[in-house]
Amino acid sequence: MEPFQLTASEAARQIAQGALSSERLVKSLAERIEARDLAVKAWIDADIEGAVRTARKLDKLTPTCPLHGIPFGVKDVFDTAEMPTTYNSAAFFDHRPTRDASCVSIARKKGAILLGKTDTVEFAAGGRRAVTRHPENPNHTPGGSSSGSAAAVADFQVPWAIGTQTGGSLIRPASFCGVYAFKPTLGTVGRDGLRYFSNLDAVGWYGRSAADLSLIAQAYGLAESRSPEVPLDKTLTVGICRSPFWDRITADGNKAFEEAVRRLEKANVRLVDFDLPSPFEALAVAQDNIMRGESKAAFYDLYLELGEALHDDFRAMYTKGGVSSSQMLEAYDLADESRPRFSRLLKERGVDLLLTPAATGEAPKGLSNTGDPIFNVMWSVLHVPCVAMPCSRGINNLPIGVQLVSGRFADSSLLRQSTALARLIDIEALRLPIS
Amino acid sequence: MEPFQLTASEAARQIAQGALSSERLVKSLAERIEARDLAVKAWIDADIEGAVRTARKLDKLTPTCPLHGIPFGVKDVFDTAEMPTTYNSAAFFDHRPTRDASCVSIARKKGAILLGKTDTVEFAAGGRRAVTRHPENPNHTPGGSSSGSAAAVADFQVPWAIGTQTGGSLIRPASFCGVYAFKPTLGTVGRDGLRYFSNLDAVGWYGRSAADLSLIAQAYGLAESRSPEVPLDKTLTVGICRSPFWDRITADGNKAFEEAVRRLEKANVRLVDFDLPSPFEALAVAQDNIMRGESKAAFYDLYLELGEALHDDFRAMYTKGGVSSSQMLEAYDLADESRPRFSRLLKERGVDLLLTPAATGEAPKGLSNTGDPIFNVMWSVLHVPCVAMPCSRGINNLPIGVQLVSGRFADSSLLRQSTALARLIDIEALRLPIS
Repeated sequence: MEPFQLTASEAARQIAQGALSSERLVKSLAERIEARDLAVKAWIDADIEGAVRTARKLDKLTPTCPLHGIPFGVKDVFDTAEMPTTYNSAAFFDHRPTRDASCVSIARKKGAILLGKTDTVEFAAGGRRAVTRHPENPNHTPGGSSSGSAAAVADFQVPWAIGTQTGGSLIRPASFCGVYAFKPTLGTVGRDGLRYFSNLDAVGWYGRSAADLSLIAQAYGLAESRSPEVPLDKTLTVGICRSPFWDRITADGNKAFEEAVRRLEKANVRLVDFDLPSPFEALAVAQDNIMRGESKAAFYDLYLELGEALHDDFRAMYTKGGVSSSQMLEAYDLADESRPRFSRLLKERGVDLLLTPAATGEAPKGLSNTGDPIFNVMWSVLHVPCVAMPCSRGINNLPIGVQLVSGRFADSSLLRQSTALARLIDIEALRLPIS
Repeated sequence: MEPFQLTASEAARQIAQGALSSERLVKSLAERIEARDLAVKAWIDADIEGAVRTARKLDKLTPTCPLHGIPFGVKDVFDTAEMPTTYNSAAFFDHRPTRDASCVSIARKKGAILLGKTDTVEFAAGGRRAVTRHPENPNHTPGGSSSGSAAAVADFQVPWAIGTQTGGSLIRPASFCGVYAFKPTLGTVGRDGLRYFSNLDAVGWYGRSAADLSLIAQAYGLAESRSPEVPLDKTLTVGICRSPFWDRITADGNKAFEEAVRRLEKANVRLVDFDLPSPFEALAVAQDNIMRGESKAAFYDLYLELGEALHDDFRAMYTKGGVSSSQMLEAYDLADESRPRFSRLLKERGVDLLLTPAATGEAPKGLSNTGDPIFNVMWSVLHVPCVAMPCSRGINNLPIGVQLVSGRFADSSLLRQSTALARLIDIEALRLPIS
């Protein structure tokens, strides 16, 4: 096995044991990027030489941090001091912040090596799409807005990468690309140095195993310790939540979801049907109104500064009618009421976490449509932690994942249970990359 | 009357009429700052020469923007490209961001002139206090964390200034210093380029009249038009809300509040008692838990980067026990439930806005204690818009204000009503500065 094929956890273990140097890992990833970048286009910028220099320094030290010597990518909506920060906006191609965003700084302080900035939908919000292609089929989208981060991890170009989710920008691309993703409870990872879009902006990450999601969470202080070999909790109760949006599932998506349910049943996991009563179905419109209403405030400076140079998608917010005050109030009141109600439903029904679709099905064809976020937006506006994990494949042989969701601030327990459930659900192992 | 004594609205009117040049206004403010800075210490940095250059340029143009040629100050937790951004933290004294924060950029695009950065409690959160003194008595605090912005406006050193409120950092200093302040509905003014502290961070501003608050709101797209001469709405119903924390009011604060009520009664404003039922009183603890829990995530990068160089107040969050996950969940669930409940209470009782204390009383003695935010934290966690306006004075002859509060997204209407109510409540006119 080549180093670029290792998960973050495996690479960290080998580095800690002295069986692998960080320099060798970086160079192996660099070769993989060189071989694959033209096909996948996951990166807006990468600094291989800088990463090699940092790796050499780290190789001289005894590993004490969980991510010692492990490279990572960052969605290009986060500030970085040593690389440009473009937001995939033409107006920011020369933009050079002076400090790293807090999530980048934390990763580096925990020993991780910044390999580069990954492509993104403009400002993670609209406008220009990423040029990134699906690693397994260049005619399909990798999903968005965290397109480059998901594709780079899926294509073995980097073991883990940071993304964001305001609607469905972390979980959906993970499902499309066949990787793992974690969206923590809103506000539990600092957002300083993230170009602000909406209060719903959540910082999260991609990896190629549930153990990797935990390892990274440990670095951010969200998980107590790294424990990849968690046994299945026999008292665990999983709610099967087809969600109020089940009519949007595709035939493929349906098949993948039922397959995940069957695998849990087969392993004697306690399952209960978990329907969400009315008006939970109205949260999709509420999320959209909140996101659009807040983004109008968030991008007003750019509208005034850039004028015609700002993409029409953003300019339209100011030249056409937007979300009214009464719509905003209604959306917020519903969202606020629904969060404690969701906490109560979990408690009353004795459910530890939910199994729910991560996307409607396979990654759609074409690069302009990054896919339907309908199975993500409700969880985003509920602020709850979500894990995406691979399950099976659709008619085009592209991956389809499922999603695990728990109550707010149960991040550590959700991640722990996910490592056990992944052994049951993700049994069609990730394909090794074709070189 | 010297130009430095003008409110933003008056100065804007004179500039639009050609009766005042922006250069003359800047130079008058510069003289005022020079005369008073040693006593008040409101500024961390000011760029008079730069402001004069910008004023000269603006004086050659026909005013089309509401804030054309009007100088302003910015709390030093916002990025500025042309001045250092220190957060009042020793570790950031040389920090130079490359772009202006969105609220600074918007103000400048609307014609305002950035005069300087105002002193603040470190990161608007804890640690070092501002060195700013109360403009009327140097032995008293101007309040915090927006200490410099409040004091500079109160002392006629600048007509308006930007601050933030996470707990009570805008409204309380306004009350202490005898000026007006506006905290908009959370999320309606972009926060890009603000050093992130908590999801509760709200961007707002100080002025010396209710009309000024509206004028600035217009620049940020929160108020439809400037209308300083709003007549009193005869159908207006004001809820008198002594709040669940009335036992914390001082004798002075009580007297000022009852005086405001009496003035409204005398003008035949329709008043109803507005009590907040249980568990609204628990929102004070909930706000504190949310703010502390989120700040632990928000400052984690600084803890890792700065180590011993980070103020003990912040380091203690990581070395001592913090807010637990179950406390966070409880705080969030209560806060979320209370917001729609507050919307319903206003509607059911037919109340347009509330009159409630802005602070417990006069500014306390000493600079280390910036005062008790108890009459602010509930409104912060409810995300509602708040206006502070001067009312009367306490036993030390220092100002005491009152607060007007409305439902979320009723910002425009709250500001409009405030201009009419100010003519009833703020009848002991602001003293002109002693030169």
